Amino acid sequence: MTENEPGHGAARLARGWAAGTDEAPVEVGIGLLGLGNVGGAFAELVEDEAGAVAARTGLRPIVRLAGVRSAAKPRSAGVRALALTEDLSSVVRDERVDVVVELMGGAEPAGELILDALRLGKPVVTANKELIAARGIELSRAAENAGVDLLYEAAVGGGIPIIRPLKESLAGERVERLMGIVNGTTNFMLTRMSDDALTYAEALAGAQGSGLAEADPSADVDGHDAAAKIAILASIAFGGEVAAESVYREGISRLDPIDIAYARRLGFEVKLLAVAERVHGDDGGSVSIAVRVHPAMVPRSHPLAFVRGSFNAVFIEGGAVGELMLYGRGAGGRPTASAVLGDVIDAARDLRSGSCGVAGAASAVRVRPMDDLCSQYYLSMEVLDEPGVLAAVAEVFGNHSVSIRVMEQVGLADEARLVFLTHVAREADVRATMADLESLAVVKRMGGMLRVAGTADAGEEGAWR
Amino acid sequence: MTENEPGHGAARLARGWAAGTDEAPVEVGIGLLGLGNVGGAFAELVEDEAGAVAARTGLRPIVRLAGVRSAAKPRSAGVRALALTEDLSSVVRDERVDVVVELMGGAEPAGELILDALRLGKPVVTANKELIAARGIELSRAAENAGVDLLYEAAVGGGIPIIRPLKESLAGERVERLMGIVNGTTNFMLTRMSDDALTYAEALAGAQGSGLAEADPSADVDGHDAAAKIAILASIAFGGEVAAESVYREGISRLDPIDIAYARRLGFEVKLLAVAERVHGDDGGSVSIAVRVHPAMVPRSHPLAFVRGSFNAVFIEGGAVGELMLYGRGAGGRPTASAVLGDVIDAARDLRSGSCGVAGAASAVRVRPMDDLCSQYYLSMEVLDEPGVLAAVAEVFGNHSVSIRVMEQVGLADEARLVFLTHVAREADVRATMADLESLAVVKRMGGMLRVAGTADAGEEGAWR
Repeated sequence: MTENEPGHGAARLARGWAAGTDEAPVEVGIGLLGLGNVGGAFAELVEDEAGAVAARTGLRPIVRLAGVRSAAKPRSAGVRALALTEDLSSVVRDERVDVVVELMGGAEPAGELILDALRLGKPVVTANKELIAARGIELSRAAENAGVDLLYEAAVGGGIPIIRPLKESLAGERVERLMGIVNGTTNFMLTRMSDDALTYAEALAGAQGSGLAEADPSADVDGHDAAAKIAILASIAFGGEVAAESVYREGISRLDPIDIAYARRLGFEVKLLAVAERVHGDDGGSVSIAVRVHPAMVPRSHPLAFVRGSFNAVFIEGGAVGELMLYGRGAGGRPTASAVLGDVIDAARDLRSGSCGVAGAASAVRVRPMDDLCSQYYLSMEVLDEPGVLAAVAEVFGNHSVSIRVMEQVGLADEARLVFLTHVAREADVRATMADLESLAVVKRMGGMLRVAGTADAGEEGAWR
Repeated sequence: MTENEPGHGAARLARGWAAGTDEAPVEVGIGLLGLGNVGGAFAELVEDEAGAVAARTGLRPIVRLAGVRSAAKPRSAGVRALALTEDLSSVVRDERVDVVVELMGGAEPAGELILDALRLGKPVVTANKELIAARGIELSRAAENAGVDLLYEAAVGGGIPIIRPLKESLAGERVERLMGIVNGTTNFMLTRMSDDALTYAEALAGAQGSGLAEADPSADVDGHDAAAKIAILASIAFGGEVAAESVYREGISRLDPIDIAYARRLGFEVKLLAVAERVHGDDGGSVSIAVRVHPAMVPRSHPLAFVRGSFNAVFIEGGAVGELMLYGRGAGGRPTASAVLGDVIDAARDLRSGSCGVAGAASAVRVRPMDDLCSQYYLSMEVLDEPGVLAAVAEVFGNHSVSIRVMEQVGLADEARLVFLTHVAREADVRATMADLESLAVVKRMGGMLRVAGTADAGEEGAWR
């Protein structure tokens, strides 16, 4: 098909070419919403790779029109030739647009534009994690009703294939747990804090200096970004609607490099982990889901411990498949644009064949309260250096049935610091222990608390040991 | 639909249920060919997970009939209830069979049965790497002509999603290089040789003792298995037909633990790597493909160095996406069965919608001769311990324009051993250097030769440094 044969989406694409023949490739008209970092990189990637993609797939992507906030704004050379408009709705409606690519971010008008596109029978590709985390099920239903795709591989893990493997490759798999390093900014900061003994403030300044962190870093450092992403992954893996607000969330701003250094001595790396896991009730039948974001100690022998700098990874444990890890560049214009382009080609293939991805059944999932988490815990505290201190502290642990696995006293200038690694304990009991310790006269100051990653007792006998 | 409504494949599946509604799930009738390690695990997985899969996807897989060599053979409890037949062709033809799953292995009769199934309009899922490596393009064309899927995710990397990400997620990506640890047996042996200083023979005996290696280990240790897998991956990534026989192949049987230990001291792990890469000609235009399997030195800072024991991983470098790694269990009944079940569900979805995966365009690819490889090299040799030896050896390197980056003399009992790490050199020059060294009077015995993984100069300035 050529531009001389206008027509509508599926019908137009359905005519023509079959991969592997000598016929001319079918053009896939893209309507692009947003021309920022990712949008600009996407437009350039399409320009650069259209020929190679056509040779491999028989589909030639072409950006027909880009909707922007200000058409007058100066643009880089790679996107200067694009037709621009400030009328975003016209991008969606344009007859030459087969697939709508939304890279504006934010809740609105992105959400309404996506719904408009779906109603017109046009598949949508987006990298908008906030929107998918908040309205993913609703938008997926709208896509299913329209019989077209809504794809969002780039919303989690940038260029790393995660959503599609979870939805398709693992369709027959009972996923038990997902653990992700899904925010590159905080992983970059934690790597610096660990390698170079930087404080949180120093690491943040470094990340801001190199353009990795925003002036207001809260979305990253407080774990909002990671919470949105794990909510999306949990919804897919566990077939239910997990709201980002139901994700327990602790950021990295209160981390002390002393605790990171001590964790390292114990054989762990400290990572901001986004975790979603299936929790089997004691009765054997009831199942709930635990979803949380917090700094965690990852044993150095675990593959996630290897994920350094701004890299991302998602570690998956399944009943049959065992352990999987998907690793790569979790952010950045070009890696994210690559995932978007993969989705565009997938959407165009489906459009031609008249099929669409499935939204999946959304059953109600019960999210387990954080108090019920069972984990090993690292605790540190500054104490008076006098006889009887350890006995007093140990008694508090015992009162709450928190059993100590490792205790060490570390000299710290003129003070004494105690660090503990517990056996598996319940979060509520550890919290109660901490509260009691805080009021103990011999405890000068409570230090950090870190959870150990993995199964309840993986730190003791996990498969990766 | 129920069993009371017989009918044919696509038409039957097309009736009925939409995911997310309350309607009853659609049964997907599976005809299973082969009930060995993977086949048995697959049948059990289907039995265990059918309900959960139906809840998530609306599709309930069920094995209708299994074709086996001997129906009289005793079977495990999990598969005893299956209907068995020794008439393999009847499995393909059975009207209740929507999807054919081939887990027999071997070239024939697997190949003919697959073609028969495709001709009947039934999608096929297989884990048969030899068959796909030898006839993948031909079989994919047959599937495309029939308008149904031929899926083989499990043929490479067991349960790790690799084929689908390469075909779909990276459809818009220019893959520059794939490096895989795709044979668990040899990686297990190399891990033991490295950790415990075992000889090759000791490591092989250990692998055989724990059931990881066959009595005739050639397929694993000589790299045939890895060559078939990288041929499949290269064909997909580079859109051409790469025959397994055109893959340069060196196994691990001649590896000396001394060289592994020395590589480790230099900061490298020795892995059997399967590599496929795009090679850009000096003229900037011509492109060829290099495909090879050989032991290689992987810098400890590279993610592949972390892949230990029987785990597998594929590391992908793309123009836009940067670096990706997909890691997990590369073999074993249940992980492989998980990938097969994922494919079955995908095939059933496509069957319902009447679509199929694309075979992709198969252009002729030029495979670069091994002599033209540019890499850094590790060489070791036993030499006489007398003055002038180093000068004589260094002269030989110089004669062939092979430049030395690191040289070290290691005392070895009463002998002297020289180890060299070269700058980037051409394979043919290094081979010529080795031949000349071998004939040098001061060289008592040539030791190991290992190539350094990564870009031509990644060992010096790779991104993962």
